Amino acid sequence: MRGAHVDAADIAARSRGIAPSLHEYLPPTPLLPFRGFGADLGIDVLAKCEHLQLTGSFKARGALAKILTLTDAERAAGVVTASSGNHGLGVANALNLLGGRAIVYLPENAAASKVAALRRLGAELRAEGADTGAQELKARAYAEEHGLTYVSPYNDADVIAGQGTIAVELLRQLDGEPLDAVVVAVGGGGLISGIAAVLEQQRPEIKVYGASPAADAAMAESVRAGQIIQVDAAPTLSDGTAGSVEPGAITFDLCRELVDEWILVDEAEIRSALKTVIDTEHHLIEGAAAMAFAAARRVTGGRVAVVSCGANISSATLAEVLA
Amino acid sequence: MRGAHVDAADIAARSRGIAPSLHEYLPPTPLLPFRGFGADLGIDVLAKCEHLQLTGSFKARGALAKILTLTDAERAAGVVTASSGNHGLGVANALNLLGGRAIVYLPENAAASKVAALRRLGAELRAEGADTGAQELKARAYAEEHGLTYVSPYNDADVIAGQGTIAVELLRQLDGEPLDAVVVAVGGGGLISGIAAVLEQQRPEIKVYGASPAADAAMAESVRAGQIIQVDAAPTLSDGTAGSVEPGAITFDLCRELVDEWILVDEAEIRSALKTVIDTEHHLIEGAAAMAFAAARRVTGGRVAVVSCGANISSATLAEVLA
Repeated sequence: MRGAHVDAADIAARSRGIAPSLHEYLPPTPLLPFRGFGADLGIDVLAKCEHLQLTGSFKARGALAKILTLTDAERAAGVVTASSGNHGLGVANALNLLGGRAIVYLPENAAASKVAALRRLGAELRAEGADTGAQELKARAYAEEHGLTYVSPYNDADVIAGQGTIAVELLRQLDGEPLDAVVVAVGGGGLISGIAAVLEQQRPEIKVYGASPAADAAMAESVRAGQIIQVDAAPTLSDGTAGSVEPGAITFDLCRELVDEWILVDEAEIRSALKTVIDTEHHLIEGAAAMAFAAARRVTGGRVAVVSCGANISSATLAEVLA
Repeated sequence: MRGAHVDAADIAARSRGIAPSLHEYLPPTPLLPFRGFGADLGIDVLAKCEHLQLTGSFKARGALAKILTLTDAERAAGVVTASSGNHGLGVANALNLLGGRAIVYLPENAAASKVAALRRLGAELRAEGADTGAQELKARAYAEEHGLTYVSPYNDADVIAGQGTIAVELLRQLDGEPLDAVVVAVGGGGLISGIAAVLEQQRPEIKVYGASPAADAAMAESVRAGQIIQVDAAPTLSDGTAGSVEPGAITFDLCRELVDEWILVDEAEIRSALKTVIDTEHHLIEGAAAMAFAAARRVTGGRVAVVSCGANISSATLAEVLA
């Protein structure tokens, strides 16, 4: 299935437009040189530290950008999503900041720490089966039935524009200094679509790499196939990017048009990158961010910004990775 | 042995005086609510995130504060210290920023990642035995012989004043909001002396807790004994605070005068706090910082700032803690 078409220039304009409002609620994340990580690679690595973002991931941006477009009445009536992960936290956080009801569908077996984090942000939780697809259907049906707003994690122009504010911020932080490439983790493609749209408008010479785990690379394989396809997926440490691409997703055409090159990394590379970031930079990052750092190791030469997309990893998973 | 006397008001004045210069080189660290960590404790926990400080620890402040007092000629001639840990990185970083030679004595068995980090900052390294005391003697002798400046990790009024800038920054970030207590990790006592001196002058109602591992609590036991004493020490996860207090250390009187209460925590409490910070806040902290968080769990009620002093933990140590 082809994706519906959304104009990259329109996304970029929305990103630039929403950035000042977003920054009233979400302070800019640091852009830090990760000299230790890049030292043996012959590249200068800059980390755009979304792992230090409120809620522990960039998803806070997209959710807030979308929910800022709603009226007070719409927020008060309720905003629905399906996610036990970073997007759910992003939606709950946005309504915690702006006022309103967050209704989050999540699997019955969701981790206690994630449930607690959502509750602290005041979200109403609906436990529903164990399959993400089922929760999404339920959530959409509930929203439609009650006339509430459903917020997709990536298939929404405002959500994508929210993620694009990372690039707006990055360019301001670079302050005209050269940059050769940006490496971005790709799941549904919302993050890279927003970032690449802004860069194409303002700094088209910066190469955009899309990074995915070889075990679960739905968007990369869809782009190769020329249409959105279902792919076989195996479990990956990069759980934040896992899952299929929704039929008709607007991110498909954006990725096809804007991503310069794809890098697929294996699980050993992800583990190694996570360990190295801990040992040389002493920052905690989640699997999807480690996956982007692993991909950066395949980039030859130059000054490379890695979007360090999140920090939401459990001590149990971390123990397994480091064992 | 009693410590030499330095006036707390003098330290506080130096901290306030040096803070603007320090901030030209070291951006303020965030003061973040750690709601998840405090949720089950009935306290509001604020983390002063020195684990996000340049070099990965607060030691960057004290070293820079001291080295800013030197002349260009003194910096060019060379600044000597003995430390394979955070203080060594702080000294190397200061001379990397300001220009000059950093000469760092460290043990022959220092971890490769620490050696690499010191080298990246341009430090000249001198490997010397395996015993910290021996390196310190060698370093002092070398400095004296060649007319160079030796920088103590804590027994120096300018170093202490540099650490005190944490409190200057904290009070600005609080912006007049109430705070009941501050919890600070204590090794040689430089960090808590600086912070407590500033607080006593400006917000004397804020209670200052000194935290140490029960396994190695030289300052707490010296204060109890009324003089600096040598104590039996066992290995601790809080390696950043380990070690005896130097005879004549000026921090002794400051701690005696300024620390309101001492909390000694055991190793299981440190491990548990480190795990909880990872699971609920997704920040990477080192043992000494986890030790301070563990102590905060013993504080009853109120709004408590924990000085999260550093992030320099290896993936190997982390794996052991989480296993």
